[in-house]
Amino acid sequence: MYKPDIKVLDCTVRDGGLMNNWDFTVEQVRKIYHALWAAGVDYMEIGYRHDKEMFPPEKSGAWRYSDDDAVRNVIDHVPEVRGKERPKISVMADIGKSVESDFTVPASESAIDLVRFATYAKDADKAKHFAEHCHALGYETCINLMAISHCSEFELHEALEAMVEAPVSAIVIVDSFGSLYSEQVHYLIQKYQKYIGDRKIDIGVHMHNNMQLAFANTIEGIIRGALRVDGTLYGMGRGAGNCTTELLLSFLKNPKYDVRPLLDVISEIMVPMREEVEWGYLIPYLVTGALDEHPRGAIAWLKKPERNNFRRFYNLMLEGEPIT
Amino acid sequence: MYKPDIKVLDCTVRDGGLMNNWDFTVEQVRKIYHALWAAGVDYMEIGYRHDKEMFPPEKSGAWRYSDDDAVRNVIDHVPEVRGKERPKISVMADIGKSVESDFTVPASESAIDLVRFATYAKDADKAKHFAEHCHALGYETCINLMAISHCSEFELHEALEAMVEAPVSAIVIVDSFGSLYSEQVHYLIQKYQKYIGDRKIDIGVHMHNNMQLAFANTIEGIIRGALRVDGTLYGMGRGAGNCTTELLLSFLKNPKYDVRPLLDVISEIMVPMREEVEWGYLIPYLVTGALDEHPRGAIAWLKKPERNNFRRFYNLMLEGEPIT
Repeated sequence: MYKPDIKVLDCTVRDGGLMNNWDFTVEQVRKIYHALWAAGVDYMEIGYRHDKEMFPPEKSGAWRYSDDDAVRNVIDHVPEVRGKERPKISVMADIGKSVESDFTVPASESAIDLVRFATYAKDADKAKHFAEHCHALGYETCINLMAISHCSEFELHEALEAMVEAPVSAIVIVDSFGSLYSEQVHYLIQKYQKYIGDRKIDIGVHMHNNMQLAFANTIEGIIRGALRVDGTLYGMGRGAGNCTTELLLSFLKNPKYDVRPLLDVISEIMVPMREEVEWGYLIPYLVTGALDEHPRGAIAWLKKPERNNFRRFYNLMLEGEPIT
Repeated sequence: MYKPDIKVLDCTVRDGGLMNNWDFTVEQVRKIYHALWAAGVDYMEIGYRHDKEMFPPEKSGAWRYSDDDAVRNVIDHVPEVRGKERPKISVMADIGKSVESDFTVPASESAIDLVRFATYAKDADKAKHFAEHCHALGYETCINLMAISHCSEFELHEALEAMVEAPVSAIVIVDSFGSLYSEQVHYLIQKYQKYIGDRKIDIGVHMHNNMQLAFANTIEGIIRGALRVDGTLYGMGRGAGNCTTELLLSFLKNPKYDVRPLLDVISEIMVPMREEVEWGYLIPYLVTGALDEHPRGAIAWLKKPERNNFRRFYNLMLEGEPIT
């Protein structure tokens, strides 16, 4: 029997935005929202809410900020999909790049349903504090613990202690470097479960595809008890990209899901976008994934004329050389 | 500790040949052989040995036939990699497309070390017979059971009974449709082990990437006891392609493996080839994988002007329409 409690969050615009500077048109975001709705996807993460003082709005697309007005301008102009619940809207706040003062409207008056906090382990207390702020405004909240493969046991212990005391509906394992194998996913889920105990907090997984393991690791998460799974259309996302939402919906047996509306929007928007914006299985991303390194070196390398000198990149990464 | 008994077979030229009609130059095949040697790869499957009467040689490249002379022309002109054992050479015979009379030279006088027989379950007896013929000539032999996801329990029972009585060093689980999930790999390996009992026969896995699970399923195979693993460079292979050899070598801990020579040849040969020949994660391959269908419909669809109308393809596949 399928697990009705599994919830799919599509973060194409948010995570994919890292690759195109959040330069999606309103029309594209409306079409994606409509497709996710028709497909039965539970959440759409429509962007970050980054601090406009740190990141001036003239330099990035609207989905780096995801103002309430911009979100309304999407969701209020999409025809209803009858018989399906609309996707809830999520925005991501980044600890250190987002500010609490950008969240003042009560959830009841906002187009946003969920705020997810992306944090490194050392800032888990800050994420908890931010979550308390948003929870008090009536938002659902989650904490996404990034770069999990670089957390020491002790850091993870401290972060988990903070996160499970936050007013969150889920804590999410984020394999930022795409370097986890399934046995590590299994291990981490068990650890999260131990800290959660009998609290009503779900576990989520957000997997990157450097070693072509994003979907497999997401399935492993589901087998071990994760109830929140992240995907992006056609895998669009930083570097090697993400677990794809279309694979998730092909796999999950809940009758409410239908992959076909996603195929339409992949055909119309994502395939042409992939011609302009490069993400996916490229050897430098494999190298950073296999070496458990941040993909930024690979992203920088792929902009160089010598981008296909993979051995040189591998050796530079081994030497710990910064790629600029 | 790493398992020293795991052996990697690269079948880029054989399986990739399905996508370019085996149109690799001698120079390319030499470079691939040399790279595999330097990387410590155990076997190179250099091509099929298909019947020239069924498949006239003027219509396909040399690696559809893999004559001894052609193979010698590769391996005798490659500089030695000192301190490494050279890869053994494998050719694949296809039951129904290859003939025993094309194998008459004793192994001791041949450039070929291993003959692998690709068979559907119903022809397992024929594969056994062919294996006996080649074994008597001194070749190592394996049987690759194709389209495993379409085997009924009873067919698989009969095929396994035949295969374990053949003089083979390994029997290989072939996920031709790229439709297996890890739990099915686990199940199949246990079943193979039951039939093998205490015979000295290894289990192998050959995984396709329709659902981006080829590498993950290969790892699952290794965890469950498979000792033979197949890969191709940059994943080149039919349709969505294969588990990549470079991912395998990044994962395996045996000190004899070094991924860097593979990166060189991927850079020089495979990346440019991918510009000409299309394989990898394309939505029609996801559709056939998720529906557990042969990829031929997807291959045909991708040649049409309407190739990106993924919904239509999905619906046609659901209806069982042949795509021509």
